[in-house]
Amino acid sequence: MTNATRARAYAPATVGNVLCGFDVFGLALERPGDVVEARRCSTPGVVITAIHSDGGRLPTDPNSNVAGVAAGAVIEAAGLQNVGIALEIWKGLPLSGGMGGSAASSVASVVATNALLDGGLTMEEKILCALAGERRAAGTTHSDNIAPSLHGGIVMVRPEQPGVAISLPVPCGLAVALVHPPLELGTGDMRSAVPADVPLERAVSQWANCAALVVGLYEQDWDLIGKALVDEVAAPYRTPHVPGFDDVRAAAIEAGALGAGLSGSGPSMFALCRNISEASAAAAAMTGAFDAVGLRSADRFVSLVGSGARVIEDAP
Amino acid sequence: MTNATRARAYAPATVGNVLCGFDVFGLALERPGDVVEARRCSTPGVVITAIHSDGGRLPTDPNSNVAGVAAGAVIEAAGLQNVGIALEIWKGLPLSGGMGGSAASSVASVVATNALLDGGLTMEEKILCALAGERRAAGTTHSDNIAPSLHGGIVMVRPEQPGVAISLPVPCGLAVALVHPPLELGTGDMRSAVPADVPLERAVSQWANCAALVVGLYEQDWDLIGKALVDEVAAPYRTPHVPGFDDVRAAAIEAGALGAGLSGSGPSMFALCRNISEASAAAAAMTGAFDAVGLRSADRFVSLVGSGARVIEDAP
Repeated sequence: MTNATRARAYAPATVGNVLCGFDVFGLALERPGDVVEARRCSTPGVVITAIHSDGGRLPTDPNSNVAGVAAGAVIEAAGLQNVGIALEIWKGLPLSGGMGGSAASSVASVVATNALLDGGLTMEEKILCALAGERRAAGTTHSDNIAPSLHGGIVMVRPEQPGVAISLPVPCGLAVALVHPPLELGTGDMRSAVPADVPLERAVSQWANCAALVVGLYEQDWDLIGKALVDEVAAPYRTPHVPGFDDVRAAAIEAGALGAGLSGSGPSMFALCRNISEASAAAAAMTGAFDAVGLRSADRFVSLVGSGARVIEDAP
Repeated sequence: MTNATRARAYAPATVGNVLCGFDVFGLALERPGDVVEARRCSTPGVVITAIHSDGGRLPTDPNSNVAGVAAGAVIEAAGLQNVGIALEIWKGLPLSGGMGGSAASSVASVVATNALLDGGLTMEEKILCALAGERRAAGTTHSDNIAPSLHGGIVMVRPEQPGVAISLPVPCGLAVALVHPPLELGTGDMRSAVPADVPLERAVSQWANCAALVVGLYEQDWDLIGKALVDEVAAPYRTPHVPGFDDVRAAAIEAGALGAGLSGSGPSMFALCRNISEASAAAAAMTGAFDAVGLRSADRFVSLVGSGARVIEDAP
């Protein structure tokens, strides 16, 4: 254990699913992200002293807050007892946005707490601690946001081994447009919108596209990546909840994006692009299309596929 | 059009699905395979003059025989009319064996007929001609046996573009044990055994495994390849039709195989192995396990993952 009295970490927004890879693929942006600072305190256990930029809506009860639960999991995984941690959270991501906000808070808490305590956790342990946070506070059982927020880049997870993330190659320049309309959808509601069974034909297309996306990333084959970026499984049931979905998607493609659709369970939409300037054009076009259906002032983010969570020194 | 009067082609056995990739992945063996010879004849159309080693069970009506239909498709695709083709077929593969027998005959016919007519077909056109043969004569609509028999190696196909095959990397040494028990299952029956809907959770595992297999092949990661070689979708419904399935699979794994299961829709079973000597051991163990349940004298094949169909000069 070090003698540091505080540690601060940043964890980026993520796009879960990446269209074809429901519960399996995820990618990290460079920005925006959440910041969590962990400080030692004398009372054993975890407390949350402040949450910024959440409009007062996130719970400060550490047992109900993803960051609080995740910090507790780190203390336990590190085999420490009688340790007191106070967390302060700066939300950079919208709530219920489909941008991996709960994953980012959970991951930032794990990285900050592990750094403070010199916990020596492996990547796999960090994923499992962050997942404990997301599971308790948000009901999430898949690490397709946690893993990319922690590792960075594009990763795949396998349901059988939730702690293991496999990093995929990121073609040079690969960029993301991410647009968050002024609309909130609960992850749980959007998950239950997807039926418990998938028609075999769609399922076959889906796994063919998952395999094709991996090939496209290894081969830097933009055409194949574009063809693989199709969601046959969740989109048909989720997109009716997002006004203007078809127009926003079409606007992104027309602006040059390789593919576009819901980020995670939405309502945010993302487009994957060959470079930053295409992503900027796609983001502008997508925002315009949301405007046209009355969803004005959507937040717009443009970023290279980014590196993962890290300890930071500077203020959030 | 050349003045050749005959051309002969060889097309190898294939393993469809490769466990996780139902209707999507396939791989080619080096041997065994089927041979088709195409000769010019004066009467326009296609005739089948002889079929060897089929026990008299395959139709010689060219409109009901995969090789006959495929040759007709080549004539049409090449834009030729009034051409007469006589086919002679040597079956090296068992009927209804799950070793891609109808695909091999269809592909060999396409390659031989195209060579004879100097048809200049592209790979994509060859796949579509061979698929026309399989579709008419065997009801098959997926090219997961056709494509690997033609291209060789390990390929993936996408339902949206049946003519397009994507070759995947083949780790050096990768070998196959293929065991054909004395048992015939109709491809159609085995297909209808698979329900029209897949539980979402199994489907997610399946596409995670498809993606993981591709990563494993690119990274030459034997451990990951082994973990990905799981069939969550078809095996639960098909394996009850194959006595001893669990024992045969266990015998292969115990002999060192990375993974094992049904080849295509069975009843043949295959094991994927790191090298030929492991494949030999797996084949022996699998044959022994079939013996133990009364399926004696199973045919046993051991082969590197092979090159695809080709024109040959020598006798079959």
